[in-house]
Amino acid sequence: MNYCSHCGSADLVLRVPEQDNQERIVCANCQTIHYQNPKVVTGCLPVWQDQVLLCRRAIEPRHGLWNVPSGYLENGESVEAGARREVREEAAAEVEVNYLITLYNLQKVNQVYLQFVGNLVDGKFGVGPESLECRLFREDEIPWDDIAFTSSTYTLRAYFQNRKLGTQTFYRASFPELSPGLPIS
Amino acid sequence: MNYCSHCGSADLVLRVPEQDNQERIVCANCQTIHYQNPKVVTGCLPVWQDQVLLCRRAIEPRHGLWNVPSGYLENGESVEAGARREVREEAAAEVEVNYLITLYNLQKVNQVYLQFVGNLVDGKFGVGPESLECRLFREDEIPWDDIAFTSSTYTLRAYFQNRKLGTQTFYRASFPELSPGLPIS
Repeated sequence: MNYCSHCGSADLVLRVPEQDNQERIVCANCQTIHYQNPKVVTGCLPVWQDQVLLCRRAIEPRHGLWNVPSGYLENGESVEAGARREVREEAAAEVEVNYLITLYNLQKVNQVYLQFVGNLVDGKFGVGPESLECRLFREDEIPWDDIAFTSSTYTLRAYFQNRKLGTQTFYRASFPELSPGLPIS
Repeated sequence: MNYCSHCGSADLVLRVPEQDNQERIVCANCQTIHYQNPKVVTGCLPVWQDQVLLCRRAIEPRHGLWNVPSGYLENGESVEAGARREVREEAAAEVEVNYLITLYNLQKVNQVYLQFVGNLVDGKFGVGPESLECRLFREDEIPWDDIAFTSSTYTLRAYFQNRKLGTQTFYRASFPELSPGLPIS
């Protein structure tokens, strides 16, 4: 941020506003406080019979690696609707959102991941424009060394743990403490 | 937003960027895309014995009404740490976060509420600068008609439902569909 988005002044300062306790970017000209807050990344692991659907990324970062369909929540959208949209965009597929499986804090980049488990409708999928390919994997086929993000590794571990135990347990973690209560694969 | 925060130009346009499918504010001068995304509101309902702690708001909106301590998640903070901070700021109290009880979408103002249940440490609390008063309530004392936000009503209903059933069920809803599986008080 180089200029105030309200008045256009370049006179931005870092200070603690009145009745606040954190430093903010404040415009010294018009006094607008420019708050910056984390973003929600919403996603869904589509399940079909004994398999899960992953997408191989056609975009940076982590081009070529596998991921649980996920992306930034948009204004005006519920977390569930955002998760369905991401599956549609990345895998050209429809899911029925089933349950929230993980909350994963990635504080170093100001992201909060919320990922669901969903049912892949009719087992149908394609390849979205942000994906090189999409594929169903059985548990013993998961490419653990080629997963794009730790959030996806966490959700995959949580899902297979739940499936083994017959539970719908919700898991919370913060990077880099990946695996509270989860077995390390 | 009147000016580009990157280059200071007032030549902002609303258009769908390449490889996107939604309208964004784009600077016609430097081509910066100004994404706008929902914010996370994190909070915690502090529990002490058979009572819960609420805060009466000293600030707008909903000045004078009762609330579950909550506020915007900050950059660099986990959702859990944010919830503890909000309890500290609003009620001058410490909580041990216990479990996530609600995800509540308030799409009309681009907010996602994540509220926890926590244990009020030593039953101690004060009154933070954003509160007129803080008070412990038994279930039959909750001022249902004077709760500040529907998110708080939802979390309170969910908590008393869980307490009655001896569960730690996690509930999801979107305004205005308030009460999936929850009894209306």
